[in-house]
Amino acid sequence: MDFAHSPKARRFIERVAAFMADHVVPAEAEHRRQLKTGALPWNQPPVMEELKAKAKAAGLWNLFLPDEEHGAGLSNVDYAPLAELTGRSFIAPEVFNCNAPDTGNMEVLVQYGSPEQKERWLAPLLEGRIRSAFCMTEPEVASSDATNMRATAIVEGDEIVLNGRKWWSTGIGHPHCRFVIFMGLTDAQAHKHRRHSMVIVPLDAPGLVIERMLPVFGALHEPHGHGEVSFTNVRVPLANVIAGPGRGFEIAQGRLGPGRIHHCMRAIGVAERAFELMCQRALSRTAFGKPLAHLGGNGDIIANARMAIDQARLLTLKAAWMMDHVGVKGAMSEISQIKVVAPSVAQMVVDQAIQMHGGAGVCDDLPLTELFAAARVLRLADGPDEVHRALVAKLALKPYAAAMDASR
Amino acid sequence: MDFAHSPKARRFIERVAAFMADHVVPAEAEHRRQLKTGALPWNQPPVMEELKAKAKAAGLWNLFLPDEEHGAGLSNVDYAPLAELTGRSFIAPEVFNCNAPDTGNMEVLVQYGSPEQKERWLAPLLEGRIRSAFCMTEPEVASSDATNMRATAIVEGDEIVLNGRKWWSTGIGHPHCRFVIFMGLTDAQAHKHRRHSMVIVPLDAPGLVIERMLPVFGALHEPHGHGEVSFTNVRVPLANVIAGPGRGFEIAQGRLGPGRIHHCMRAIGVAERAFELMCQRALSRTAFGKPLAHLGGNGDIIANARMAIDQARLLTLKAAWMMDHVGVKGAMSEISQIKVVAPSVAQMVVDQAIQMHGGAGVCDDLPLTELFAAARVLRLADGPDEVHRALVAKLALKPYAAAMDASR
Amino acid sequence: MDFAHSPKARRFIERVAAFMADHVVPAEAEHRRQLKTGALPWNQPPVMEELKAKAKAAGLWNLFLPDEEHGAGLSNVDYAPLAELTGRSFIAPEVFNCNAPDTGNMEVLVQYGSPEQKERWLAPLLEGRIRSAFCMTEPEVASSDATNMRATAIVEGDEIVLNGRKWWSTGIGHPHCRFVIFMGLTDAQAHKHRRHSMVIVPLDAPGLVIERMLPVFGALHEPHGHGEVSFTNVRVPLANVIAGPGRGFEIAQGRLGPGRIHHCMRAIGVAERAFELMCQRALSRTAFGKPLAHLGGNGDIIANARMAIDQARLLTLKAAWMMDHVGVKGAMSEISQIKVVAPSVAQMVVDQAIQMHGGAGVCDDLPLTELFAAARVLRLADGPDEVHRALVAKLALKPYAAAMDASR
Amino acid sequence: MDFAHSPKARRFIERVAAFMADHVVPAEAEHRRQLKTGALPWNQPPVMEELKAKAKAAGLWNLFLPDEEHGAGLSNVDYAPLAELTGRSFIAPEVFNCNAPDTGNMEVLVQYGSPEQKERWLAPLLEGRIRSAFCMTEPEVASSDATNMRATAIVEGDEIVLNGRKWWSTGIGHPHCRFVIFMGLTDAQAHKHRRHSMVIVPLDAPGLVIERMLPVFGALHEPHGHGEVSFTNVRVPLANVIAGPGRGFEIAQGRLGPGRIHHCMRAIGVAERAFELMCQRALSRTAFGKPLAHLGGNGDIIANARMAIDQARLLTLKAAWMMDHVGVKGAMSEISQIKVVAPSVAQMVVDQAIQMHGGAGVCDDLPLTELFAAARVLRLADGPDEVHRALVAKLALKPYAAAMDASR
Repeated sequence: MDFAHSPKARRFIERVAAFMADHVVPAEAEHRRQLKTGALPWNQPPVMEELKAKAKAAGLWNLFLPDEEHGAGLSNVDYAPLAELTGRSFIAPEVFNCNAPDTGNMEVLVQYGSPEQKERWLAPLLEGRIRSAFCMTEPEVASSDATNMRATAIVEGDEIVLNGRKWWSTGIGHPHCRFVIFMGLTDAQAHKHRRHSMVIVPLDAPGLVIERMLPVFGALHEPHGHGEVSFTNVRVPLANVIAGPGRGFEIAQGRLGPGRIHHCMRAIGVAERAFELMCQRALSRTAFGKPLAHLGGNGDIIANARMAIDQARLLTLKAAWMMDHVGVKGAMSEISQIKVVAPSVAQMVVDQAIQMHGGAGVCDDLPLTELFAAARVLRLADGPDEVHRALVAKLALKPYAAAMDASR
Repeated sequence: MDFAHSPKARRFIERVAAFMADHVVPAEAEHRRQLKTGALPWNQPPVMEELKAKAKAAGLWNLFLPDEEHGAGLSNVDYAPLAELTGRSFIAPEVFNCNAPDTGNMEVLVQYGSPEQKERWLAPLLEGRIRSAFCMTEPEVASSDATNMRATAIVEGDEIVLNGRKWWSTGIGHPHCRFVIFMGLTDAQAHKHRRHSMVIVPLDAPGLVIERMLPVFGALHEPHGHGEVSFTNVRVPLANVIAGPGRGFEIAQGRLGPGRIHHCMRAIGVAERAFELMCQRALSRTAFGKPLAHLGGNGDIIANARMAIDQARLLTLKAAWMMDHVGVKGAMSEISQIKVVAPSVAQMVVDQAIQMHGGAGVCDDLPLTELFAAARVLRLADGPDEVHRALVAKLALKPYAAAMDASR
Repeated sequence: MDFAHSPKARRFIERVAAFMADHVVPAEAEHRRQLKTGALPWNQPPVMEELKAKAKAAGLWNLFLPDEEHGAGLSNVDYAPLAELTGRSFIAPEVFNCNAPDTGNMEVLVQYGSPEQKERWLAPLLEGRIRSAFCMTEPEVASSDATNMRATAIVEGDEIVLNGRKWWSTGIGHPHCRFVIFMGLTDAQAHKHRRHSMVIVPLDAPGLVIERMLPVFGALHEPHGHGEVSFTNVRVPLANVIAGPGRGFEIAQGRLGPGRIHHCMRAIGVAERAFELMCQRALSRTAFGKPLAHLGGNGDIIANARMAIDQARLLTLKAAWMMDHVGVKGAMSEISQIKVVAPSVAQMVVDQAIQMHGGAGVCDDLPLTELFAAARVLRLADGPDEVHRALVAKLALKPYAAAMDASR
Repeated sequence: MDFAHSPKARRFIERVAAFMADHVVPAEAEHRRQLKTGALPWNQPPVMEELKAKAKAAGLWNLFLPDEEHGAGLSNVDYAPLAELTGRSFIAPEVFNCNAPDTGNMEVLVQYGSPEQKERWLAPLLEGRIRSAFCMTEPEVASSDATNMRATAIVEGDEIVLNGRKWWSTGIGHPHCRFVIFMGLTDAQAHKHRRHSMVIVPLDAPGLVIERMLPVFGALHEPHGHGEVSFTNVRVPLANVIAGPGRGFEIAQGRLGPGRIHHCMRAIGVAERAFELMCQRALSRTAFGKPLAHLGGNGDIIANARMAIDQARLLTLKAAWMMDHVGVKGAMSEISQIKVVAPSVAQMVVDQAIQMHGGAGVCDDLPLTELFAAARVLRLADGPDEVHRALVAKLALKPYAAAMDASR
């Protein structure tokens, strides 16, 4: 198990770090100002387009794509430190065209898209000209159990008809959003892994209505946001089905692996950012005649955070390494492990950074409450902790169960 | 130690519970609607004034005041269940004229106010005609260490001149807010408990500027809010000093005892509300063929929450009982103990209730993120956990230290 | 809910505390010495009989029995502080004739015993002339699920025939042990609460074999110990069945309530003893120029322990109060709550006391490893944490489930 | 950072694993039997010498020594999995001549020993003909603070005179123990890193008295044990001082790095052994109609243990890798991190394995209480958690402190 980064990766790390320091972080305030003072909060701030142009010109673009043709050709281990760096700033992922859910959608289209789908939807996504969303989770059922899904995608002649209600469709509020990938039930009688379809739906398809944008801990996350979307007899050509009807589950499985790892890598970045703020505060703020760092249990809090983050990063790298070497299926336990560990460590460290800051920690002088919400939500997105822990337990017990069976 | 509620208290519990169910909870949505659609978010929603009138008419008014003349004459043990009930709804405390910081300000004026101060400021507060704020915490120093305070209150002839910057002045945004109680350093050479003064400052005093309203996890908590306030050569008559110059520390000590207990009682209410939502969700939502309540570790989460809340309530009652029987000084350890325990239990339970709800838990379909922010902030307000734990440790070690000294 | 102790109880508290300080604690070393140097470790140390005689003479005897005729007539709330005091010393419970499982056995015989059973077995137990054991848990099945029980108690004419294997029969190694109460399956077809019987079995009954004495964390706990016992066609008269065949489950339910509370009260005593040792060490030991109490997070550890113990005690008192006022059935949740909380708090505090002592904490210079084992075992005895948490969850969900059903 | 094991290491892993399965584990019961039934418990069981001979013949000997001349020439990363394997059995380390403190003593002598010291003491240790001990920790002072050390090592002519009291001298009870390495204060006026000396003391030196053998959670760990040892005017030739007077601190620093890593690697083995037992029990034991693995929160417990162990292993490998590539000084934070994490994870997992076993977990039918004690003690040995956390915090804050200084 080798976590050493390739020379190519090391050069990217240096360049992304420098770009973050020189361009992204200094632009955060302006981005926020433009959002707040724009005609509408749901407009794209011009500074984002400028940053994207710079990143593209610098070759720091689509780094997430393992495919050499479209992306940087980096392994998961090599991409990990880049994702962690972009996790430190809320605006960074879009700057580098590496933001969810577009990353997952691009991966799906690269791997399963027809030539026509690639030309019409993948190409502009790769160029950052449009954005997209993913419509899977439903408000009325526990989406942790995929068999609960109620939305339907019924084939009628050369069309497919979509009905249902989805929510937490991230990115659907973005002014550049042009399409969603919708998942629905096509054939309830088929084998349980062949029942669902994934369908490309233009945002302006009749019957697709964004019912509302959902706040996250009170924040709408403009300009991309998270939508609740209804589909009422939405008709699109059968050619919009990705890889053909019935292959939705298979695609979803493949899609979630790298996506979960990217999320977790960014969560490590969230934790490191909070850790940095906590340490700076602990050293600069004084009470009872000493810096906070030397008061009571604060040293333990810092040490425990350091150890938790370092372990979470190593576990994430292990999952990445396994994805690279044995594939999603072989890395299933590790992917679920980091999905539990990384957001939870990030939440804990942000919470402690808030505490170290007192009142300053809960207002918006610092990004801590935003980082908190990001970490907290990640414990639910892409499957709640509970589902992942259950999978880890199942896989951990497997060899012992097999041994017991063998000895009978 | 008797936690039994007096017959008077039991009647109040029934009546407050009924009033909450009949009037307050049903009005929550309307209150929110009026706030959002009012001319300005910082207007008082008319529904609040209607509820206040009803509560006053029903005799459910100023229940927090132990003073029989102005309030209900309830002990802390008797007031505890009422505060817990009001903790379940964000709008409830104001309805019953029992909201911080007006409660603390009223207590201070009842106990230390001059007849003129009582007539001008206490009377309208007791009637709910005006609101007030409290200006103690400062942005530039760690307020956990009171000796850090930089704001000054200098006596000049028959005036006192105030300078400094305060923040987290809750209630200062309320359209009815008419004055603040300001705490500042009067004589740096005096005994450390005689240095500070508390001064009544009309909100329109020249030199008092509300610099901005502070968001809490992104929410401004209109219409009362939390302000950052600058005082620049604010001059008020010496008659505005409460109990005379130099008595600020003494008043603060007395003020914080019941205030902390009220906060903790409401925090138990927050935890119970979240627990209720969590249980309802656990029973009504199904995954993998079972209600969530019967899946994996969810039963343990519910049991642990139940045990933590019950213990926190008992500890709060013990602190209340001790305040009633041995006073603030004798209850110092218990007051600090509940200040650590109750908000932390509330935060934990709300976090778990969020998890049980999935995506619904982090958007505003439910009050969970608001409850979370309320609990989280309480771990910082009125002294951070760290300061209270340090006091608990100091008092816990005292008897052993004394025994060791004696045996030498 | 009144936790105030009656005047009678307050007098007992003073006297038991004085007796502990004057007689019991000073005798601990001699008790250990006599055990180690006696002819056999399984002999009763003479010092114990002397202490028992003194306690009896002082009227500090059978205090646990709520029955005025045989015991002190104390409520559970009143007995709680006495049990806590005796929990501080391993030898104290037997000194006062208040040690498990004899206490439970005496309660059973007082409540359900026939006149003959009372005369032959209860009388000498009450006088402390004999000891007894309880044979319920079985090595081959998970005893957390009572329906698993395999031992049988079959009526044949005027005899009952016992077969099966039991373990963790505490006290069976005591040289004064004269009988056990055995629980077995009598009628597998009966209602599930009428299937089992409890039978008095003289220790010298043919077919009863003590297979071995079980160590607990390496210690055999001489002279009482914990046995693994086989019953092979053990025949005793039908008159030995307590309350008649089929009533075992009913008796067990009643027996466990007070027993669990006594265990938990003593666990609080264990925690307080460890807390005392931890504080003394924290004040007397110096490193890096300061007492340990003022180093790093040690203050937090002390404060957290203080808060956890105080909460556990309050919860135990609540359970005791409910037992006194609404009975075992109404106090089921609280009894299970303390059964989880008290041993777990005790284990945590002892573990931290060990840490504060360094190497001295793990050897036998201090009673800490013994206290640790006592607390640890209590998380398994009388039902493991898991079973109690499940019950707490079930009862906590009940009102919400009922409300949901009603609203359908 | 490459955790891949070299081909040489992979071959050793296979062979050690096979040797463990074929010879060591099957001999555990016999080893215990011989100990219990030997003339004295402090005799070496013959089966141990047989196993040592087999291991030596198989070339599985002194694998810990990075030195190619005397050992296997394995890096720390390569040795890690071997140490983990031996951590699964209490008798394994000695079988492979890889047990503490002999490993540390051998390392010291290889690196700092004079030719005479090597010939007389190192050679027989390397051959497994003798055993040794290390006398550093003192009962009367907090050894977490090295400056507390009271024992003295005073040069007088060509002799050095030792006085003081040491304890937790592991291995001193072994019938083959022939010498100890003693650490004492030589020159209180010297630079604080040049004050102490390490001295080889034959076990039969006049004035060296083993005062008692110390139990650990009640167990004496025969035949090696842990001694409390007094040194009263013990005189040995100056030639016995390792590397010359005043170099004790320097040697200790070097000695502790690999030793701590070995301990932690073995702690991972302890955790894995407990995890294995827990899983086997969870699958084979049934309650309420299901295997324990599928009851309540047991799946979460298993998943959390799996994640904690995997993270602890990765962190240990990182520390090993850093020791290999940047040396002890550069790996200081990581060494302290694993010293906190690995024993604490092991303790947690063993505790949960005990719980999963019920009564079987606390008696000696299984090695769980022994594994518990081993893990618990490791949180104190080689520096308590607190000292290591303080160091981790200090090093974590360093870069931020430097940046703050630079920006002033």
